[in-house]
Amino acid sequence: MDEKAFSKKTVEILNKIRRQKPLIHHITNFVVMNSTANVTLAIGASPIMAQAHEEMETISAFSNALNLNIGTLNPYWVDSMLIAGKAAGQRGIPIILDPVGSGATPLRTSAAKKILSELPVTVVRGNASEVMSLFANEEEIKIRGVDSLETVDAVRNGAKIRAKALKKVIAITGEVDFITDGTNDIEVHNGHPMFGMVTGTGCAATTAIACFCAVEKDQLAATACALGYYGLAGEEAAHVSNGPGSFQMALYDALYNMTEETMMAKLKIKPAKNCS
Amino acid sequence: MDEKAFSKKTVEILNKIRRQKPLIHHITNFVVMNSTANVTLAIGASPIMAQAHEEMETISAFSNALNLNIGTLNPYWVDSMLIAGKAAGQRGIPIILDPVGSGATPLRTSAAKKILSELPVTVVRGNASEVMSLFANEEEIKIRGVDSLETVDAVRNGAKIRAKALKKVIAITGEVDFITDGTNDIEVHNGHPMFGMVTGTGCAATTAIACFCAVEKDQLAATACALGYYGLAGEEAAHVSNGPGSFQMALYDALYNMTEETMMAKLKIKPAKNCS
Amino acid sequence: MDEKAFSKKTVEILNKIRRQKPLIHHITNFVVMNSTANVTLAIGASPIMAQAHEEMETISAFSNALNLNIGTLNPYWVDSMLIAGKAAGQRGIPIILDPVGSGATPLRTSAAKKILSELPVTVVRGNASEVMSLFANEEEIKIRGVDSLETVDAVRNGAKIRAKALKKVIAITGEVDFITDGTNDIEVHNGHPMFGMVTGTGCAATTAIACFCAVEKDQLAATACALGYYGLAGEEAAHVSNGPGSFQMALYDALYNMTEETMMAKLKIKPAKNCS
Repeated sequence: MDEKAFSKKTVEILNKIRRQKPLIHHITNFVVMNSTANVTLAIGASPIMAQAHEEMETISAFSNALNLNIGTLNPYWVDSMLIAGKAAGQRGIPIILDPVGSGATPLRTSAAKKILSELPVTVVRGNASEVMSLFANEEEIKIRGVDSLETVDAVRNGAKIRAKALKKVIAITGEVDFITDGTNDIEVHNGHPMFGMVTGTGCAATTAIACFCAVEKDQLAATACALGYYGLAGEEAAHVSNGPGSFQMALYDALYNMTEETMMAKLKIKPAKNCS
Repeated sequence: MDEKAFSKKTVEILNKIRRQKPLIHHITNFVVMNSTANVTLAIGASPIMAQAHEEMETISAFSNALNLNIGTLNPYWVDSMLIAGKAAGQRGIPIILDPVGSGATPLRTSAAKKILSELPVTVVRGNASEVMSLFANEEEIKIRGVDSLETVDAVRNGAKIRAKALKKVIAITGEVDFITDGTNDIEVHNGHPMFGMVTGTGCAATTAIACFCAVEKDQLAATACALGYYGLAGEEAAHVSNGPGSFQMALYDALYNMTEETMMAKLKIKPAKNCS
Repeated sequence: MDEKAFSKKTVEILNKIRRQKPLIHHITNFVVMNSTANVTLAIGASPIMAQAHEEMETISAFSNALNLNIGTLNPYWVDSMLIAGKAAGQRGIPIILDPVGSGATPLRTSAAKKILSELPVTVVRGNASEVMSLFANEEEIKIRGVDSLETVDAVRNGAKIRAKALKKVIAITGEVDFITDGTNDIEVHNGHPMFGMVTGTGCAATTAIACFCAVEKDQLAATACALGYYGLAGEEAAHVSNGPGSFQMALYDALYNMTEETMMAKLKIKPAKNCS
């Protein structure tokens, strides 16, 4: 797909979400439960936040995607994710993983790896450090340090190899987002620095991916389109806000009010160049 | 009471809240803790969120109402509700139940039913599916499906019978809210579709009921007035907002700034017609 | 320091935060996790919210301050605080305690006292009742009542004696904030009544203190400067908002946009007079 085709695809998927209102099951951290529920609604989908083991299978049975986020983790919640994820896998609905803080603590890293090894996760979205922590071996990370080693190319190549081997989509978000399934690579150039000043905006990017993947089988395209749409909403919000407080509110408004015209004119989703 | 009398009653109760600042004990879900605390404050009452078993009785001893909400439930929290509810019952303070997701999972349905059977709940507020799940028998719900069966009249009549038998007020919120104690029925025509685009706005409607019931013995009128006032604040907020983000902020502002003039002119709380 | 020196110091510390982006580890209550993370970011620091015992020591090892808040407490979280606090103490990073609700329930009071006795807390910030509950003996509080006894002078003198004995900074916030290390006393006259209409604004004041203490060794000055800056941001927010919803958003904007000019002109931090 070229840039225009990606824009069209984004419009198509967003319309589908707004029509079908897919139910997104979130097992996520305490910090962002409210904000990611609001982002889900602003996009046009329906959120359900639940983690009690007793109801994981029931909820999976009527959900359209499962969004797993390991912030403010504890072992009970990891088990919630595994129970829900197995049920989701049996039904074949998308499972999106946000490995928040993976690489920063062994608890997070091992939880993320356990989820990846036991569940048919379809998409992983994280920043460079988080994604790197999932496939670098631990000695390597320790020796080289979490932040120092990651030249853009090294991380991208690592993600490509891992995506191909595991048959998953991996999205590395940052100034430019990089999305790969190991065969095809996409870049998203939408976004705004103000995202970094509001908590949970990375988690909410993953939420957008979950909404898009819930209604679109092509998980690679869905992931890229979700990040383009979400990043563009941030650009729109930045135009009408004066700081992080008003930016967050304007972001919800922009996600909700996003039009085909704006997307066709301003989305910047395109095949990645020069990534061996 | 006719429509004008309900408007006057609403003004009277809201003034009382702002004067007395009742303390509302919330045992509620992770998603809405922040937003319902803010709604409590915007109305003029004081929130306390707490769920540790060790402090449930102490907190009940100085609270003016207890607000129970079963979203993001787990068994520990159900016990918190039962301990706090028993203490609240002994002191005779109102207990308001929001059966979030009852009917959707057995855990929620059975928790809601347990709370109803063990505690002197004074008011239940939910949408049609949630309320229906509390009094239909399980086979019936399974066979007929949660959403299909509920013609407005069937649900309303079911609620009336149950309200009378259990001596509770039942409020079914939707495009038009229906409030009944089994003898008298009230409709509230205030509200706005934008409520559906912000998470926790149903939970916050229940919070408004808890604030109103904390200072007014007539729990039926208090419930109807709370829903009228809350719905009207949403109408006011919708006028000055551009989407769900700015709507939520404007809602808090509107709850806080609500005047007697606006309420006397725009509240639409009235006896229900044609409900056998 | 005189008023002008305090203003300069505030500018200096805030610039340092924005340059160094210290990482603030929060173990805090469910209600304010999102809002205090956002305040941390708006100030210019980085938040990490985590409470799993398995990762407390790891996180302490790369944090620059530890913020402990006992709202929505349960025993597991108290242990999280103790584990993290011991590690923080060994590294010599500041530990800030917000004894939310201490004095209101035995669980909270005893948790706050346990934290104070077992950890090298550097700063305590609470309202008059909370601070009083930490050093008055329990019979005294029971007999005299939590709110009745506290004339400003009695509380201030109690705080001074305790601050000196324990070698801590104690901050009592209210219409005028009082900060003492037992030797020097400071008053902050910045602030706005609208803070009382938004949940978690007290907790966020403590967050501001944690950010300031993370980069400044003089914990007394850092605490006073943080409260001045935070209170002034509230004044700025009140000018451009219409109620508690828009105030909260404007507060984040004001914290983020705060300039040296505004601080030099409007901060009111000064040595306390007439406090024996």
